[in-house]
Amino acid sequence: MSERKRRAGPGGAAGGSTSKKPRGASAAASYAQSLRSKLRPDDSILASLRALASASAKSKPATASSAGAKALAEDDPASASSSYIVVADQDINSVTSRINRLVLSVARSILAGRGFSFSVPSRTSTNQVYLPDLDRIVLLRREAARPFANVVTARKATVTARVLSLVHAVLRRGIHVTKRDLFYTDVKLFEDQAQSDAVLDDVSCMLGCTRSSLHVVASEKGVVVGRLIFHDDGDRIDCTRMGVGGKAIPPNIDRVSGIESDALFILLVEKDAAFMRLAEDRFYNRFPCIILTAKGQPDVATRLFLRRLKVELKLPVLAMVDSDPYGLKILSVYMCGSKNMSYDSANLTTPDIKWLGVRPSDLDKYRVPEQCRLPMSDHDIKVGKEMLDEDFVKQNASWVKELETMLRTKQKAEIQALSSFGFQYLTEVYLPLKLQQEDWI
Amino acid sequence: MSERKRRAGPGGAAGGSTSKKPRGASAAASYAQSLRSKLRPDDSILASLRALASASAKSKPATASSAGAKALAEDDPASASSSYIVVADQDINSVTSRINRLVLSVARSILAGRGFSFSVPSRTSTNQVYLPDLDRIVLLRREAARPFANVVTARKATVTARVLSLVHAVLRRGIHVTKRDLFYTDVKLFEDQAQSDAVLDDVSCMLGCTRSSLHVVASEKGVVVGRLIFHDDGDRIDCTRMGVGGKAIPPNIDRVSGIESDALFILLVEKDAAFMRLAEDRFYNRFPCIILTAKGQPDVATRLFLRRLKVELKLPVLAMVDSDPYGLKILSVYMCGSKNMSYDSANLTTPDIKWLGVRPSDLDKYRVPEQCRLPMSDHDIKVGKEMLDEDFVKQNASWVKELETMLRTKQKAEIQALSSFGFQYLTEVYLPLKLQQEDWI
Repeated sequence: MSERKRRAGPGGAAGGSTSKKPRGASAAASYAQSLRSKLRPDDSILASLRALASASAKSKPATASSAGAKALAEDDPASASSSYIVVADQDINSVTSRINRLVLSVARSILAGRGFSFSVPSRTSTNQVYLPDLDRIVLLRREAARPFANVVTARKATVTARVLSLVHAVLRRGIHVTKRDLFYTDVKLFEDQAQSDAVLDDVSCMLGCTRSSLHVVASEKGVVVGRLIFHDDGDRIDCTRMGVGGKAIPPNIDRVSGIESDALFILLVEKDAAFMRLAEDRFYNRFPCIILTAKGQPDVATRLFLRRLKVELKLPVLAMVDSDPYGLKILSVYMCGSKNMSYDSANLTTPDIKWLGVRPSDLDKYRVPEQCRLPMSDHDIKVGKEMLDEDFVKQNASWVKELETMLRTKQKAEIQALSSFGFQYLTEVYLPLKLQQEDWI
Repeated sequence: MSERKRRAGPGGAAGGSTSKKPRGASAAASYAQSLRSKLRPDDSILASLRALASASAKSKPATASSAGAKALAEDDPASASSSYIVVADQDINSVTSRINRLVLSVARSILAGRGFSFSVPSRTSTNQVYLPDLDRIVLLRREAARPFANVVTARKATVTARVLSLVHAVLRRGIHVTKRDLFYTDVKLFEDQAQSDAVLDDVSCMLGCTRSSLHVVASEKGVVVGRLIFHDDGDRIDCTRMGVGGKAIPPNIDRVSGIESDALFILLVEKDAAFMRLAEDRFYNRFPCIILTAKGQPDVATRLFLRRLKVELKLPVLAMVDSDPYGLKILSVYMCGSKNMSYDSANLTTPDIKWLGVRPSDLDKYRVPEQCRLPMSDHDIKVGKEMLDEDFVKQNASWVKELETMLRTKQKAEIQALSSFGFQYLTEVYLPLKLQQEDWI
């Protein structure tokens, strides 16, 4: 593609001659502002968003066999014969009775002279694989015995019994605790938190329920604003009335209920600076949407919350991340999960997130000035190349192309780089134009 | 003090014999539970809290001359003759006209043949001192010229002019931006963000207004729940109806208004795990209070918010931090400010915060089991010793004593260590007992 054509940008032929001017940055700025005139009336953009939303609502959960389908599958819990482990959200009574049954079977084994032993799913990395059909990382079904009468496993068997009893106590009180709380209830036994954390994940797998069902929660750092109403522990939260700060996403997803929305899409934002701009400009009033961010690396609470929104509201999810390998990595955690939590990937992941921006191709398309782009470090390039090998990237040809562009130009840019065209360029020009052109992949 | 007497703990003589039992941890646990019986009815605790709150409401802002007084002084902005710089919150019109006046005076200087130059307060560390009377770090009144016609300062003078014009543009639009946004508007000139950030602080000092008045905000990470109602950008927020997640503290304090509360005190919590416990147990319904946390190191938004609450509601502030040198350091940032923001210490600091817990003396008093305490590292001890030299610690004899206890025992403990007595020990026994005994320093 010729330089001139490549530079023509999203609006077509506009601005070809200005790009020859010596002062590149200011020409880029006036070009960027000229994009404003390309914007159609909001009504017309809203019409296409409505079509997108209704298509998203109608799409049936794809079956695992439909090739390439990014299923938002409520995996069939009855298919216990499947090759991978699926844990599910369970209520207090169900988890408690699962613990009771497990402990009873151990007791029976002791009484029958077969000894005290747990059967624990193996969570080693060789047991964690990416399933293209499901488009997420899963934990294969392979178990190991954890007998008490074995010098290698005696300690771990004890820790497992203790964690089971602690979780039982938490559930009986109907409260939630953090992993740190759990560790401190028996420091002498657990020695360090990594041990109780690991066994907690084991217990999730053994019981077949999510860690949130065990009422052991991670700290939350996510916030949400926009066209969303939900109940947090019974309190009705209207996210259009949460000011600029937004509502902190609750750590305990099982206390979230009554989700309602008239939004047309969910806008997932990598960082809080962009979130603040969108919240202050009340972007959701112009284009009805729900805006949320985990302020960097996605935490479990935000991932659970996003998935709940997607499952219940069936809205398309559009993502705004930095144009660098970490932006893509963050997307991958939302979409496919992390290896560490592979056993719970069905509940933690939100498939079919569209990459709205800032994409490597946007840098030229929107003529982000050279000085607002940053050179990629050797480490960035290494991470970028690793991402090219990730199955979840390879599945999507347009993503591969974008990542190749990034690695070829060796340039990265933050969402904030759009501020070089004005502080409100993001909300007034860039995003509306992206939505108008349905420019997501 | 004999071992027996030291171990007698807050309730007096109780439990002396159990401490001889071999299983120390479980004896400590049963002793800890026995403290429950020491609790008086809530009404009686509430009566003393009401007395505390009304004393706090009546206390007049102490003058700078009253020795040792921790003044919540709205420093008299008229006293421009004072030896240190006081910046103040200013509305958009006031800041804009200050910028206009500043630029006019520069223009006049050019026309008079004296050249283009700014006079900028020096923010070097030798110019930052702790004033015991004010109990905070302030910036002394010493200025340096920043002429354009000097090869050393030409660049900085240009950057200063550019930042002034950007701030002017932000104020004219009535929006808020982040430091990162500001940097990206002219990367070519600013080169790296440290430069635009530093000049932004210079501009605050030059104009005599807070950075929030410039509408350049930091990202927020704090959350609040409890007996508080306020308006965030016009939306009415009732913090008793914010579920377990709480309300994210808004980044732009000037959009906060209409603060109302029937709380008796403000409970400042270091970390989110303790915050979650308090929120889930709705501690504020039993003891009317406002609970807030910055989730670790206090950010500017949370510090501004706390100060606003204290100034407008005149409530006592009680702090729950880890029993380690960093817990104390976090307290010092809330109370006295950080050196970096010394010019704005009057607006960012909240004097007279009471150290409720977890204090080094609590570890024995509440018999926190040995295995839940952690040995201090060499670095911890070094930081602890440095804290002993800090003026703000030296001012308070009981704080010195606590810190000496920490350094003598070489032990630290997190708030979460209280979970060793049960997940809800914090909210059901420890805090009520602390409040009952008015055990803060």
